[in-house]
Amino acid sequence: MTSEEIKSAIWQMGAQARAASYALGKLSSEQKNAILLAMADALVARESEILEANAEDLAAAEAAGLTGAMIDRLRLTPARIAAMAQGIREVAALHDPVGEVLREWTRPNGLHIVKRRVPIGVIGIIFESRPNVTADAAVLCFKTGNATILRGGREAIHSNVAIARALQEGGTPAGLPPHSIQLIPFTDRESVRHMAEMDRYLDLIIPRGGAGLIETVVSLARMPVIKHYDGICHTYVDRAADQEMAIAIALNAKAQKPGVCNAMETLLIHRDIAAEFAPKIAAAMEEKGVELRGDPDFIRLSRSNRVVSATEQDWITEYLDLILTVGIVDDLDAAIDHINRHGSHHSDCIVTADTAAAERFLDEIDSAAVFWNASTRFSDGGEFGFGAEIGISTDKLHARGPMGLEELTSYKYRILGNGQVRG
Amino acid sequence: MTSEEIKSAIWQMGAQARAASYALGKLSSEQKNAILLAMADALVARESEILEANAEDLAAAEAAGLTGAMIDRLRLTPARIAAMAQGIREVAALHDPVGEVLREWTRPNGLHIVKRRVPIGVIGIIFESRPNVTADAAVLCFKTGNATILRGGREAIHSNVAIARALQEGGTPAGLPPHSIQLIPFTDRESVRHMAEMDRYLDLIIPRGGAGLIETVVSLARMPVIKHYDGICHTYVDRAADQEMAIAIALNAKAQKPGVCNAMETLLIHRDIAAEFAPKIAAAMEEKGVELRGDPDFIRLSRSNRVVSATEQDWITEYLDLILTVGIVDDLDAAIDHINRHGSHHSDCIVTADTAAAERFLDEIDSAAVFWNASTRFSDGGEFGFGAEIGISTDKLHARGPMGLEELTSYKYRILGNGQVRG
Repeated sequence: MTSEEIKSAIWQMGAQARAASYALGKLSSEQKNAILLAMADALVARESEILEANAEDLAAAEAAGLTGAMIDRLRLTPARIAAMAQGIREVAALHDPVGEVLREWTRPNGLHIVKRRVPIGVIGIIFESRPNVTADAAVLCFKTGNATILRGGREAIHSNVAIARALQEGGTPAGLPPHSIQLIPFTDRESVRHMAEMDRYLDLIIPRGGAGLIETVVSLARMPVIKHYDGICHTYVDRAADQEMAIAIALNAKAQKPGVCNAMETLLIHRDIAAEFAPKIAAAMEEKGVELRGDPDFIRLSRSNRVVSATEQDWITEYLDLILTVGIVDDLDAAIDHINRHGSHHSDCIVTADTAAAERFLDEIDSAAVFWNASTRFSDGGEFGFGAEIGISTDKLHARGPMGLEELTSYKYRILGNGQVRG
Repeated sequence: MTSEEIKSAIWQMGAQARAASYALGKLSSEQKNAILLAMADALVARESEILEANAEDLAAAEAAGLTGAMIDRLRLTPARIAAMAQGIREVAALHDPVGEVLREWTRPNGLHIVKRRVPIGVIGIIFESRPNVTADAAVLCFKTGNATILRGGREAIHSNVAIARALQEGGTPAGLPPHSIQLIPFTDRESVRHMAEMDRYLDLIIPRGGAGLIETVVSLARMPVIKHYDGICHTYVDRAADQEMAIAIALNAKAQKPGVCNAMETLLIHRDIAAEFAPKIAAAMEEKGVELRGDPDFIRLSRSNRVVSATEQDWITEYLDLILTVGIVDDLDAAIDHINRHGSHHSDCIVTADTAAAERFLDEIDSAAVFWNASTRFSDGGEFGFGAEIGISTDKLHARGPMGLEELTSYKYRILGNGQVRG
């Protein structure tokens, strides 16, 4: 296909998605849930077809010399397909926020105004190698009445096509409107540009992937983008902390699952307790295999000869690994200032028994989720009770922090009158 | 100043605004209101200084040969300054949404989660010739705890500088944090680019002006932009309409104030009543001096020889003038389809006594505000009871339709625990 033909095909998908979004808006929750269950069944029924497509991607990945970790992210198994299907069934069981009345009131002139939740419309999802995103993202958008245009990475193209086809063809007999879920079959960079320029048809783009992908989308997009940037999360151990609790929380935040965005990357310790706390936390972290990088005070107080000196870069790095930067701060103000300057405004925690200190931390830390005496690992749609999560937004507009179904909706004002005109 | 020096000055304003936003976040509603009243007093006290600056702009505008309408938009008078001050006092009297609890709940593990309204942070406002936007926009952002960076048009630069100085210097003795309200003193196009790239410091840009300005900001901006595009608003007169009511609503929507975004631009009439309704509405509109452009059916049925033939372009034009396009549609479906395709998703109305038809219209029209038996002219923050309005968003993310103070806030999750760690 020529470059013009690719552009034309993508714009046609946009127009089709817009039409689909209007059809989706008319479905009841019951109809949508029946379609979701049919999609889940179709994924399982087409297991062998999906695995065959996946084998093509795996063979290409091996031929291209991808790393073991990358190949593992690409790999589908019967268990992983079953998990995708189960995930869809769980989404079907969730409450549908569409149609909820957010507020309603009557004006002195008798106009009755109802602010009601509606679908956003058409959502573009641009993602990288994991093929399960095809199902996860499309299904959350569908549950909330949105049409999706998906554009996955080159490595998973055969798997993505097979999964998208299973969802579409599986949902159709149950009433899925045509073009509700479309996968762009092109994996060149130009197709991202076409999506980003198609603000006539796409109401929102959500990039799911690394900083490079997000940067590209942000620089090109004419429509709103919800970004899921890094989590450079902090735990601040206050002078008034229960030190055993602080050790438990810090160990959990760092080591329970280090490769995720809500894991801690930096620990700050109040100077007044540092002489006592530093050696305890150093020993506990090192026992868990955590490499420590400290400021000069922590290196001196830790009584460990394995702590290396933290560079400027360490304080702004998301390691996603068993590495932790540790600093000693003079007071609460210094902790707040450090976190607001060096953090990524994702999730940060104070451990303290001092209510006034906690209140100030919760008020003044400019992050999506601020924790008092609990691990930052709870910054998660599932742990918040949202039932499902499309990501954790590091934006402040529309959606901040864990994004569930509600964040995939917009609203509309319905104004009911009996002939009112403006004077 | 060199181009590099301008860039550096704007980025420094960004860093200062971020620091100011943290200071603003600590102010109570009472402190903010006292500062607002001091700002209002300062505008009045500095009337002569502001009028002198305005005279410079007016002289330059006349020398440059600007039109009378443009010069009028630029002109400040003692009455207009008093109105700006009064507007600030009214904002001071409004309820402050910051700090409101939007939702709170406890998880089975005991974590207590509070979703609470907070300021957005730093908001950039880029606007054109009206100098009163300096005060209006800065004050609404300040009321909600946001720092602002304002960049106005070249024509009003002296007026804008004088007004911004009055707000800053007037607010300072009452406790306004430094750099809370900053005006960029450069009016070259490069300064818009620098703002648009400064996503580290600006959380949001709101362009206030014509489509050209919005387009420029959208294409450059790396941060969220809330857009206030055209209003191509429709009134659909259903088969079951009270025709007297329909005439009153249509006249109001078109002619009461034609130059605004919530005025009607297109009227659609159900075919079943067209023979009776078309001549009545044509006569009523023409009596008000409205030029009518119709489809062939309306031209034939209107019994007026003054109706001209509507072009393709007419159906997608925001006239902002006493011009109206009129079409006959076969049924409700055709009306909905026409409006969703040709409209700007701003504000649209159905006039009908048929509840089922009204419900379908309200559900299926993809617009920010959908009216049943009331003029689209009510699509307005003041008319909605918001007390103040920064604009009418044509976006679907974060803010849709009339934007009041709530839409100038974000939220934050506060999670209170007693040592919880994730298993």
